Amino acid sequence: MSNDTNTSGLQLRSLVTDDGHLQLFLKSAPITEPGPDEVVVRIEATPINPSDQATLIMPADVSTGVTTGSGEETRYTAKLRKGIESRVQARIGKPLAVGNEGAGTVIKAGSSDAAQALLGKIVAVLEGALYCQYRTLNVMQCMPMNQGTTARDAASCFVNPLTALGFVETMRMEGYKAIIHTAAASNLGQMLNRICIEDDIDLINIVRKEEQAEILKSLGAKYVCNTSDDTFMADLTAAIEETGAYIAFDATGGGDLGSRILSCMEKAALKDVERPGPYGSTTFKQLYIYGGLDISPTYISRNFGFSWGINGWLLTPFTQKIGLEKTMVLRQRVADELHSTFKSHYSDEISLSEALDKDTVAAYSQQATGRKFLINPSK
Amino acid sequence: MSNDTNTSGLQLRSLVTDDGHLQLFLKSAPITEPGPDEVVVRIEATPINPSDQATLIMPADVSTGVTTGSGEETRYTAKLRKGIESRVQARIGKPLAVGNEGAGTVIKAGSSDAAQALLGKIVAVLEGALYCQYRTLNVMQCMPMNQGTTARDAASCFVNPLTALGFVETMRMEGYKAIIHTAAASNLGQMLNRICIEDDIDLINIVRKEEQAEILKSLGAKYVCNTSDDTFMADLTAAIEETGAYIAFDATGGGDLGSRILSCMEKAALKDVERPGPYGSTTFKQLYIYGGLDISPTYISRNFGFSWGINGWLLTPFTQKIGLEKTMVLRQRVADELHSTFKSHYSDEISLSEALDKDTVAAYSQQATGRKFLINPSK
Repeated sequence: MSNDTNTSGLQLRSLVTDDGHLQLFLKSAPITEPGPDEVVVRIEATPINPSDQATLIMPADVSTGVTTGSGEETRYTAKLRKGIESRVQARIGKPLAVGNEGAGTVIKAGSSDAAQALLGKIVAVLEGALYCQYRTLNVMQCMPMNQGTTARDAASCFVNPLTALGFVETMRMEGYKAIIHTAAASNLGQMLNRICIEDDIDLINIVRKEEQAEILKSLGAKYVCNTSDDTFMADLTAAIEETGAYIAFDATGGGDLGSRILSCMEKAALKDVERPGPYGSTTFKQLYIYGGLDISPTYISRNFGFSWGINGWLLTPFTQKIGLEKTMVLRQRVADELHSTFKSHYSDEISLSEALDKDTVAAYSQQATGRKFLINPSK
Repeated sequence: MSNDTNTSGLQLRSLVTDDGHLQLFLKSAPITEPGPDEVVVRIEATPINPSDQATLIMPADVSTGVTTGSGEETRYTAKLRKGIESRVQARIGKPLAVGNEGAGTVIKAGSSDAAQALLGKIVAVLEGALYCQYRTLNVMQCMPMNQGTTARDAASCFVNPLTALGFVETMRMEGYKAIIHTAAASNLGQMLNRICIEDDIDLINIVRKEEQAEILKSLGAKYVCNTSDDTFMADLTAAIEETGAYIAFDATGGGDLGSRILSCMEKAALKDVERPGPYGSTTFKQLYIYGGLDISPTYISRNFGFSWGINGWLLTPFTQKIGLEKTMVLRQRVADELHSTFKSHYSDEISLSEALDKDTVAAYSQQATGRKFLINPSK
């Protein structure tokens, strides 16, 4: 456990070397004194999200991982995945900070009233370098939590909740009335399921396994389609016909799942068209790729006419698009419903040095195992 | 040669049968009497565009083609391509009319002044069933040509010219300042090249062969990148850096060309970024797929961040989007520059029954051969 009189703290770094390896290591750095509008946050809970994995570990072939040293001197080294070189060129030799969100206690505050008001409080933070013990931040980056909320409760206040709300807002802005979501049993998927039930929106959940389908059904999901079922395409088409879900958010990215979703949309759209032209239906079908659980190429069969779009979807451009005011409304909803709609579950709580253990790395780099890791840097 | 006292005419039909064949045949039908606002047009020139081929012949494996009979009784039969079944399901048993544009002489007119004014005139027509000898049409569908313009001159007034102009308008509407175009030595590509020179827009032309590059260079094209060159990716990236062309229009559709274009865009966008994040550049990269010269699946490597869109692009939704008034402005430009900017070239002029000859079918179904076919149904 760190104590509040520390003058330096550990920070996790991910480095791609020019000899084809990825390294994770810890680095000790002095705690920056807070300016008038700044506070020092002792980070106590920061999740490993897929969006962190992209920087943290994705380039590595974890089957080659080795951990040496211990404590502050722990170092993890693995070979790069085959074929990944062109994607990591720009980061070679640059040790990158990681950790997009987290929560902790304000242990030191600048002179301004706003900073002083946060002293001793638990705050949630959205920032890019939170896999560390202490972080000096502007008060604007800190969302104070209600009394009784722990850092663990508050660790995942931003990425998953705002992404799930962002899907619903995107659906509304683009004039759709129902959503398709893949990898739907994830923490994010479960949040989206709760939001859609609350807001009375039809959600078609796509999963790969029966146990994932069962989880969602136990949470009240009405439409669950399992890609392992022989009837997957027919099930999905029927659900689209019933709901009008012509917008999909895909976490997998690679392979042909997105293309199959668009094909089912087209089939549903053409249900009552007696003689479709060569260009397909006029129903606009939208696929957003927001993750890369499968890093292989995306295969698009284009057997769904010409009225379609496939786009990347990211939280930051989305919040820029809707603007600060609307984003604050979404944030407030997250704060209000943190213990219900936006509750996160973690299977493993680990320290910074444990995050560099080769077996632990192998476990958290396997996305979609059902395990969800939380780093507690103060542990 | 048909004569004006005919009471019936031949119409070409494309039929997918339930035993896995595509047939082309001619059918004789009475000429519909024109209503007050209608005219009868004797079709004298109608091109075979890629957009016609989609309905006409694309589903067929032309290597299996057989032609039987002659004259009105000519019939072409070929097996369907392997794997195409799901795409043609909806048209089985339905003989489809073909031919999206053409031109000819008004030989009969309804009672209204507007209809009477067209009698004897050469008109250009945009309609879906023009591979026929006579077509009764509303006056609004007919664009009268200036004196001295032949049906052959006027045959391709709509699809290629408006598509090329549509690319430029789309570029402007979406805030880009330069364009990438594939299969760029096509009739459409040559038009786009002339428009861009005239309007002072940078155009990066992508071709597959040196002779295509030479054609474009001889027409004044500044940027030509050849996919057969080892330096293709570097050439394209350099051209994008120079021009800022982050919007591309792709006629091929299948394979990885679109993905490679997006990769080059990303590389150009990151040129001056010292430490790019895991989500890539913030430059929005847009790929429009407007054709399917390669009907194989599209491979998207997604090694270009998250700020991108891939969409189908079609003329009709585009003109609906910009509205009638703006469309009329574009049409007027086509009429004014028909003998310069929008001039089309044809290598072969064939009759309706010749269009059913197996060797001719094999020739015009091979896109990007440099040959361009014109049907003259009155021949």
